[in-house]
Amino acid sequence: MPDKVRIALDTMGGDHGPSVTVLGAELSLGRHPNIEFILFGDRALVEPLLEARPRLKAASRFVHTEVSVGMDEKPSQALRHGRWKSSMWLAIDAVKKHDADVAVSAGNTGALMAMAKFHLRTMPGIERPAIAGLWPTIRRPSVVLDLGASIGADASHLVNLAMMGSAMARVLYGLERPNVGLLNIGVEEVKGLEEVREAGRLLREAELPFLDYKGFIEGNSIGQGEIDVVVTEGFTGNIALKAAEGTARQLARHLKAEMTRTIWTKLGYLLARSAFRSLADKMDPGKANGGVFLGLNGIVIKSHGNTDAQGFAYAVDIGHDMVHHALLAKIGEMLAMDRRDLTRPREVGGSRSS
Amino acid sequence: MPDKVRIALDTMGGDHGPSVTVLGAELSLGRHPNIEFILFGDRALVEPLLEARPRLKAASRFVHTEVSVGMDEKPSQALRHGRWKSSMWLAIDAVKKHDADVAVSAGNTGALMAMAKFHLRTMPGIERPAIAGLWPTIRRPSVVLDLGASIGADASHLVNLAMMGSAMARVLYGLERPNVGLLNIGVEEVKGLEEVREAGRLLREAELPFLDYKGFIEGNSIGQGEIDVVVTEGFTGNIALKAAEGTARQLARHLKAEMTRTIWTKLGYLLARSAFRSLADKMDPGKANGGVFLGLNGIVIKSHGNTDAQGFAYAVDIGHDMVHHALLAKIGEMLAMDRRDLTRPREVGGSRSS
Repeated sequence: MPDKVRIALDTMGGDHGPSVTVLGAELSLGRHPNIEFILFGDRALVEPLLEARPRLKAASRFVHTEVSVGMDEKPSQALRHGRWKSSMWLAIDAVKKHDADVAVSAGNTGALMAMAKFHLRTMPGIERPAIAGLWPTIRRPSVVLDLGASIGADASHLVNLAMMGSAMARVLYGLERPNVGLLNIGVEEVKGLEEVREAGRLLREAELPFLDYKGFIEGNSIGQGEIDVVVTEGFTGNIALKAAEGTARQLARHLKAEMTRTIWTKLGYLLARSAFRSLADKMDPGKANGGVFLGLNGIVIKSHGNTDAQGFAYAVDIGHDMVHHALLAKIGEMLAMDRRDLTRPREVGGSRSS
Repeated sequence: MPDKVRIALDTMGGDHGPSVTVLGAELSLGRHPNIEFILFGDRALVEPLLEARPRLKAASRFVHTEVSVGMDEKPSQALRHGRWKSSMWLAIDAVKKHDADVAVSAGNTGALMAMAKFHLRTMPGIERPAIAGLWPTIRRPSVVLDLGASIGADASHLVNLAMMGSAMARVLYGLERPNVGLLNIGVEEVKGLEEVREAGRLLREAELPFLDYKGFIEGNSIGQGEIDVVVTEGFTGNIALKAAEGTARQLARHLKAEMTRTIWTKLGYLLARSAFRSLADKMDPGKANGGVFLGLNGIVIKSHGNTDAQGFAYAVDIGHDMVHHALLAKIGEMLAMDRRDLTRPREVGGSRSS
């Protein structure tokens, strides 16, 4: 890994601010010594943490700002008071000015998306950006999008999501042609799914070179991990991912409580704890922390707001990987190549023979 | 429990047909001796099972038909070839003719809903029926609807869902005023959620006597069980429930595999198995089997198609409970009373002071 990856960090974002984000940056730097950070935040909070971490300090440039975007601020509010000067804006601005390759923030999603969209603008051919996340499965995590950036989607937006998500899966896993599925429900002949069916038809007929369309997928199959990229509109995607996260967390909590009820179950827990650790490693949504904003002229990574340093480090890792493996170039390449096959969504002829 | 509950059973529905449904009926009869069954199905398959079960036979009337609806048939196909004569149709017809109080089927959802809607029709004031299901939580299961009968929903449909779901929670748990939440995403100021926000405003301002509106709920909170009735449109509801079910199943499978990897983890498993059993009891979606069709002039229960006898018995239990505690009357009462407060969705004035 010789190439530098320059990461702009909104240190003030998230429920815990610098105490989590700066520590997370240090953890990720340990794994990726080729990172250079630009840290945006309040001197009083960030500098003491940096002083205690000479290695991180040596790899970082610090930029002071007293303005930060609150976790509960509405996007319009945040844009009004935080533009030009908040740590969130400055991190995005660094990407805009090519001072950084990627921005990472644990700040509030709505504000981050609004600022990113306003400042970076969408890529040619993309009307609405999307948020892609990683869904823990019994195999490796699958890419799921959109997680809430766009509500409702016509067929052509769903096709765009499929292409952008596939570019991300190529970057993450080095896949030539990731498997793609459209999230759908099993009930036949129900009204209102025309756009999903139409998107399915488009993807099937186009036989795109960079993705392998596998048809519809139902909610209970996502966690099997056989589909690399699961596509749906943002409302459903957000709720489905959170429902799955909640279920995993509640099961773990319930099991833990049951495990400590008697001396025998406690002993059983001690003997079997490697199994539990493996479970947590594999299925903990925190380990797959990091939503990737797709479709913008720049890469922005959104970490969970209530994550710990470990979780934030995963988000930084994802930012690093996206840059290191040239996500933006791959999306561009995909859109350019695939448009030749898809041209305009309603006019697809079909028969590629490769 | 002196009152008889008359249950019409489509014995041919589901992946396994009578070998599951007849056994499930027997299990439920053991718990509810006040049930009288009308069993519809193929003599050659059902009668031998009945002969071996004198108690069930004594509580049942059997009606022969050779026609059954396939699990993969489209609703329109099923209506064409299965109307008047299939076991599924005859079970619904028994409800229509007041020969039975409720119909239970593990047959395909689309066909069952199409037939039920066609034959029973919707209740006055309800345009679209819904499917309500039970979502396992760390407390008791919550009612979630719609699970796929209607795709997309305007504010007034969401309000109807809230009322019907509350009637079901009253019946299930004997609650005076169930808590109700509207499923939503955390991203502020995103377009496309106007109908959810409008429904929230209507429910808040109307202060309905039979439900306690608690505001929006996100996907990760459903499993905490603090909200008795979770309302969303059918596409999202179906996918969210299945995503949660899939997660629970995949976690359990993964844990089991890990638990048997070494002699120590195996021993740990043996010592702690009471904890696992409790987990399965509490969080296994199969234990909450039984979708309730709401908004029709009659009660129809849909069991999972791939359930076992135990799971099918739960669906029969739910059918029993819905009749025993007068679900239809409670929905009617709710709609009548609540319309006085809500009148027409856009004209709500607000200030009830109870």
